[in-house]
Amino acid sequence: MKTQVGIIGAGPAGLMLSHLLHLGGIESVILENRSREEIEGTIRAGVLEQGTVDLLNATGVGERMMREGHTHHGIELQYNGIRHRVNMHELTEGKSVMVYPQHEVIKDLVAERLGAGSKIYFSVSDVTLHDIETESPKIRFKHDGGEEELVCDFIAGCDGFHGPSRKMIPNRTENQKIYPFGWLGILAETPIANPELIYSNHERGFALISQRTPEIQRHYIQVDPNDDIANWSDDRIWTELKARVETDGWTLPDGPIIQKNIVSMRSFVCEPMQHGRLFIAGDAAHIVPPTGAKGLNLAMSDVQVLSKGIEMFFKSGSNDLLESYSEIVLRRIWKAQRFSWWMTTMLHRDFSHTSFERGIQISELDYVTSSRAALTSLSENYVGLPLEWESAKALQV
Amino acid sequence: MKTQVGIIGAGPAGLMLSHLLHLGGIESVILENRSREEIEGTIRAGVLEQGTVDLLNATGVGERMMREGHTHHGIELQYNGIRHRVNMHELTEGKSVMVYPQHEVIKDLVAERLGAGSKIYFSVSDVTLHDIETESPKIRFKHDGGEEELVCDFIAGCDGFHGPSRKMIPNRTENQKIYPFGWLGILAETPIANPELIYSNHERGFALISQRTPEIQRHYIQVDPNDDIANWSDDRIWTELKARVETDGWTLPDGPIIQKNIVSMRSFVCEPMQHGRLFIAGDAAHIVPPTGAKGLNLAMSDVQVLSKGIEMFFKSGSNDLLESYSEIVLRRIWKAQRFSWWMTTMLHRDFSHTSFERGIQISELDYVTSSRAALTSLSENYVGLPLEWESAKALQV
Repeated sequence: MKTQVGIIGAGPAGLMLSHLLHLGGIESVILENRSREEIEGTIRAGVLEQGTVDLLNATGVGERMMREGHTHHGIELQYNGIRHRVNMHELTEGKSVMVYPQHEVIKDLVAERLGAGSKIYFSVSDVTLHDIETESPKIRFKHDGGEEELVCDFIAGCDGFHGPSRKMIPNRTENQKIYPFGWLGILAETPIANPELIYSNHERGFALISQRTPEIQRHYIQVDPNDDIANWSDDRIWTELKARVETDGWTLPDGPIIQKNIVSMRSFVCEPMQHGRLFIAGDAAHIVPPTGAKGLNLAMSDVQVLSKGIEMFFKSGSNDLLESYSEIVLRRIWKAQRFSWWMTTMLHRDFSHTSFERGIQISELDYVTSSRAALTSLSENYVGLPLEWESAKALQV
Repeated sequence: MKTQVGIIGAGPAGLMLSHLLHLGGIESVILENRSREEIEGTIRAGVLEQGTVDLLNATGVGERMMREGHTHHGIELQYNGIRHRVNMHELTEGKSVMVYPQHEVIKDLVAERLGAGSKIYFSVSDVTLHDIETESPKIRFKHDGGEEELVCDFIAGCDGFHGPSRKMIPNRTENQKIYPFGWLGILAETPIANPELIYSNHERGFALISQRTPEIQRHYIQVDPNDDIANWSDDRIWTELKARVETDGWTLPDGPIIQKNIVSMRSFVCEPMQHGRLFIAGDAAHIVPPTGAKGLNLAMSDVQVLSKGIEMFFKSGSNDLLESYSEIVLRRIWKAQRFSWWMTTMLHRDFSHTSFERGIQISELDYVTSSRAALTSLSENYVGLPLEWESAKALQV
């Protein structure tokens, strides 16, 4: 088998890359080790930056999102029992975020890719990369019991944190921070608690109130990352959530919990994100803690730059943008890492903190919620910083 | 001896408090354990916030500052060898800072206090506080070989970090952070290197270029706080300074070093700042690392609130503002602590950092220098946040 771009992974990065390449007249094949049902059913993040919303709309895959998603003009920050609204829409001159779950984005992109006749191999195994330093890199994999080889011009490693692609980059630096925080997330059958997300810094730990549908909500509480979900009865979860988010006169509606799990949190950046004809994007290259809601959005900005670089190569033979790919996207990735790290450290309760460190955390919230400049800074990061590659690309095209 | 307000310490806090009380028709006596020559000759900080400049001018002690000080409309931030100007004047709608050394402020205030006939006892010793829970607190001290007792209505502890006042507050919380950084500061006979301060984050450590007079400059480099100044020859200091601040085409002028020393850095906040008829202000209550240039300025904002509270008491018999003193000033103190901690952690090289932590530090600088909102946030803190007690006071008078 041959294709122009072999894409490993049918997550947001791989699917959107394939879609963008298709719009640029470039053929790709996607390999995914999970089934279609699995990738379309896994509950993940759900906050799309303005730029991601614009991208989905501009490329014709935003229709259902616009119909079923919910535009949010702000968030609420809570500490010392008081809630402070952040009017992001006003502070960023009209930008907002869209609450629309990641697996719905995946469904829309899979439907578009298959509808356009593109090839996605689901449930593949034993994916290996070969000859990435040559002009004919290859991916070998098993599918339906047979061994296959895909010969490509380029390979895009969009295969997540545990995929094989990143490991093919020699002399890479892996920058990492593991947080002493875990998130216990629930899906619950309750009415919507609040029209906007509530981020609460409470003496007992962080809590986040969010929304899925009018009937089902998604909430989180900070727990020990090594805790066992078996220790958390529904009653205990609701008691803890209520203790951390309820305020005078505002009660959190509860109801049956239909799903619950605990995830740990890390920050991770791989540098560089390219070797030879292999380019990595999304979670394969970087992980953010979920507090900033940046994971899917970073994947989307990576592949915008990558698809333009590949297009430039096939149209003009120029490697210029591809060779700058790593540098261009890493600059924005580090800024998103900074924001995610800052939101995480500002909002979680670190029980190892000294009283000075706890004082700094509360004064950070006190300052942020009292300064228009600081609120603007938070907002411009939350709705998404600009894609600086626009200017980089303009220099080179 | 009797007075209305017994003030321990003739630093910026004590002298300005005495001056403000005098303008409000209230008598005070200042006790200082150093000599006049010593307090007027000790080199300290030199950046005055807009609010401090306004206060000195509004109370008639700003004349020499306006003549001999230098108004700065911005600073420069340097990292990765590139300098970025922060136009604070434009970002804060016309505010600026004044570079005018602390000991010059002291000279102006001492001259005013003595000129107005106020009593300052210099070179006192064995200062002790008594009966602070009564309506007649007393200060005992030795002066000129004799033992004295000063009976007051209130005592203001403006006696610095090592003074006796803070220790009289029972059940206080002392919040503290010690940094692994020291500042080696020099006074050097060279021409002005740059019209504005340069804060440089360099791989080898932080450096700061500042100005004193056309002939004498003050510069700093980050060193180990336990290092011995004897290890630092003039040559070694200049070599290190140049390595950390010089850029393509910009050379640091050098010359004879006429003073050099190493100071360690801490953040410290005492809560509360009152007990009975004792109120503490300035360094007696809080220490900031010098990176944010907030020490003298916080002392000035403390005593503005304290003097108004004492005035209110003597005019109307109301304790309301005095009882809120600690809460009102601590809110601003914590914000200044946050800013000083943030500037310090952003600009110094922490050699214990992981590559992720170093990456976050550089991306913080990269973000701050590329975002108008973040630059505005930095600027509004640097020129000085508003005194929120204005609104608190308005509620209570």
